[in-house]
Amino acid sequence: MMDIDARQQMASSGFEGRIIRWFMQRAGNPRVSVKLWNGEEFYLADGRPVACLEFRDRRAIPELLTSTSVGFGECYSRGIIEVHGDLLAFADEITRAHTEMNQGHYLRHKMRSALWALKRNTLSRALRNVHHHYDLGNDFYRLWLDPRMVYTCAYYENADATLEQAQLAKLDHVCRKLKLRPGLEVVEAGCGWGSLAMHMVEHYGVKVTAYNNSEEQVRYAREEAAKRNLDPSRLKFVQDDYRNISQRCDVFVSVGMLEHVGRQNYQVLGKLIRRSLNPDGLALIHTIGRSRPAPVDSWIARYIFPGGHIPSLGEMAALFEPCEFSILDVENLRLHYARTCRAWLANFDRVKAEVSAMYGEEFMRAWRLYLAGSSAGFHTGTLQLYQVLFAPPGNNTVPWTRKYQYGVDGVGDVARP
Amino acid sequence: MMDIDARQQMASSGFEGRIIRWFMQRAGNPRVSVKLWNGEEFYLADGRPVACLEFRDRRAIPELLTSTSVGFGECYSRGIIEVHGDLLAFADEITRAHTEMNQGHYLRHKMRSALWALKRNTLSRALRNVHHHYDLGNDFYRLWLDPRMVYTCAYYENADATLEQAQLAKLDHVCRKLKLRPGLEVVEAGCGWGSLAMHMVEHYGVKVTAYNNSEEQVRYAREEAAKRNLDPSRLKFVQDDYRNISQRCDVFVSVGMLEHVGRQNYQVLGKLIRRSLNPDGLALIHTIGRSRPAPVDSWIARYIFPGGHIPSLGEMAALFEPCEFSILDVENLRLHYARTCRAWLANFDRVKAEVSAMYGEEFMRAWRLYLAGSSAGFHTGTLQLYQVLFAPPGNNTVPWTRKYQYGVDGVGDVARP
Repeated sequence: MMDIDARQQMASSGFEGRIIRWFMQRAGNPRVSVKLWNGEEFYLADGRPVACLEFRDRRAIPELLTSTSVGFGECYSRGIIEVHGDLLAFADEITRAHTEMNQGHYLRHKMRSALWALKRNTLSRALRNVHHHYDLGNDFYRLWLDPRMVYTCAYYENADATLEQAQLAKLDHVCRKLKLRPGLEVVEAGCGWGSLAMHMVEHYGVKVTAYNNSEEQVRYAREEAAKRNLDPSRLKFVQDDYRNISQRCDVFVSVGMLEHVGRQNYQVLGKLIRRSLNPDGLALIHTIGRSRPAPVDSWIARYIFPGGHIPSLGEMAALFEPCEFSILDVENLRLHYARTCRAWLANFDRVKAEVSAMYGEEFMRAWRLYLAGSSAGFHTGTLQLYQVLFAPPGNNTVPWTRKYQYGVDGVGDVARP
Repeated sequence: MMDIDARQQMASSGFEGRIIRWFMQRAGNPRVSVKLWNGEEFYLADGRPVACLEFRDRRAIPELLTSTSVGFGECYSRGIIEVHGDLLAFADEITRAHTEMNQGHYLRHKMRSALWALKRNTLSRALRNVHHHYDLGNDFYRLWLDPRMVYTCAYYENADATLEQAQLAKLDHVCRKLKLRPGLEVVEAGCGWGSLAMHMVEHYGVKVTAYNNSEEQVRYAREEAAKRNLDPSRLKFVQDDYRNISQRCDVFVSVGMLEHVGRQNYQVLGKLIRRSLNPDGLALIHTIGRSRPAPVDSWIARYIFPGGHIPSLGEMAALFEPCEFSILDVENLRLHYARTCRAWLANFDRVKAEVSAMYGEEFMRAWRLYLAGSSAGFHTGTLQLYQVLFAPPGNNTVPWTRKYQYGVDGVGDVARP
């Protein structure tokens, strides 16, 4: 910790030091101490700093001035900026301070979110975007995901659940919500490496057609299904865009795809679900969300998830309301996603050297920052995780209470009149 | 049932008969047979009619031409129109056919809903509106509500639950969702006859300040609390508008008030809740809703609920998003409200004669139509019932799973990291 003398020293620092100070103030004065390339140190907040941010080179300044988020991400990845101490605690603190600074401004955020949405995800751009993130190589994700390769929010039912157990619990939580039973036809849009599709077929006796744009993921899913001897007439992986889904189904499920769909396509997706789903059907969308509209962080948008949009529930109305879907149940699992990201980061840190060897140090650092930043987003509430269960209008076979989701009272529709 | 000959007779009927036919077509050809004042009968749909609609006087026609909804409601109330057969089945069928006719047209409905919202609920108008409905006299509601006088959607946990049991279960469902525990300060906005406030104080040991505009209801609640010997330092009924709430609280709850708030005041209500609620607090809004925006039925707006608006979840975003509330949990209980309305109507029918003696035949018929129409709205999905649980941004003490709502795993936040 710095003493009063060191703080007063600030006043005597040079022009570049003053710019960094201005940045820290603009970031809401997080409890992070700062060290510059010239050895100068300062700390603007009260209390104990949670980490130390080192600017190793003055080249960071023009980068930060051009775009704080992109500049910070790039400089951190390249090692021009270093974080000493716990990266998670640092990300939490930065996000907390920034969120506090940005409270209010609802209309500004809403407008920026709407402008962001003008970017169109055409079929070919969607393919490029998916390729960017998901075709990095199955070997990469295998290094740090759970054995089932589930790359979405887990569901920690118990205090001591492992990531693997929590991902399994998530698959079952989704299946239970959808009241899966043998014989039902399920369409899954955006199936990742196929974990949910395989789980539904193996444990709930349904027939699944699962769509995914990513060549690498679909290849993996098909190989895995063959290894598990899953009947190909009960499980089909289709390498195609969700917009080309045309078959009828009893259940429509999409876990972790809406983030990539882009706001301008919500109505398209809604109409597609309405067209596909039988009148007595159920649908579930599991997506990262926000408590209010905002554009995606620009560094994340450039390096991690191009073409994505993280919607508020109000923005998601564009998917549900024109089709008159009846929203039955919304659950927010944001704290579960914070814990999931922390588990991923812990796994990732065990294979840092391998990742650096495969993809370079810069890539490895970018991914650590992305995982820590995501954890911070969910932990501070900048990000939410919504599971939305919904049904076509007038479907009166919907569950009567939600007890069935928790194994109470069996099917839970005992009170149907 | 009518035979082919009778159907063909249509062609020979007079001008007024043709207008009524046109109305039935415009209403989506419900399975309702029609009888006119001159003895003429017709039936335009297929299958067995669920009821017979009798136009006893040609004076119904100009009324229906001016405003179908208001005209029908007024003519039915005055006995110019009669429904033979089950009023509930009739209301269901009319609503179903009308809803099918009106599918799509999303933007038109959204715009009409927005125009509707321009009507301002000033403090004095809000008082008049509340007086219109809730100051009819406690004796009136006592005739057909459950003994606790709960005038909102019940929660039927079991197939054989009575209305009284289901209303009690609803009170507990709300209390459980809010994780009430002794010592918490609760503010209730729009407390009706005080059933929830008294239940919270008696069974959960919290301190409650409950607001209500209605003089009759507040008087009743105060008398009832005194009868039950509830400590006045733990339970206060305040006769005032929700906009005058200024105290801090741990829990904010509002059951069946948002319907009366009017869309233009959602942001006001949201800011008020944000200001009142402690950072670790929880809030719940229980409200009738829609799956898409639409204005209130004009007969209901004129005779039953002046000044109200029934929001879609997208419209409710105006309450949650500017304040950055984190929506934790949304439950839709529309089928429970259909059953509640049916139970009310059954009670009401037992005291029809008394009601007619107290308020006149026209009033009694209007209320029967309102209760049957409400049941039909919830049963067909024109109306939804949302319970929305939410928290201030960054409240990380929120429940970890929803098991606690169902008595599974005790407090249900065992997995907190």
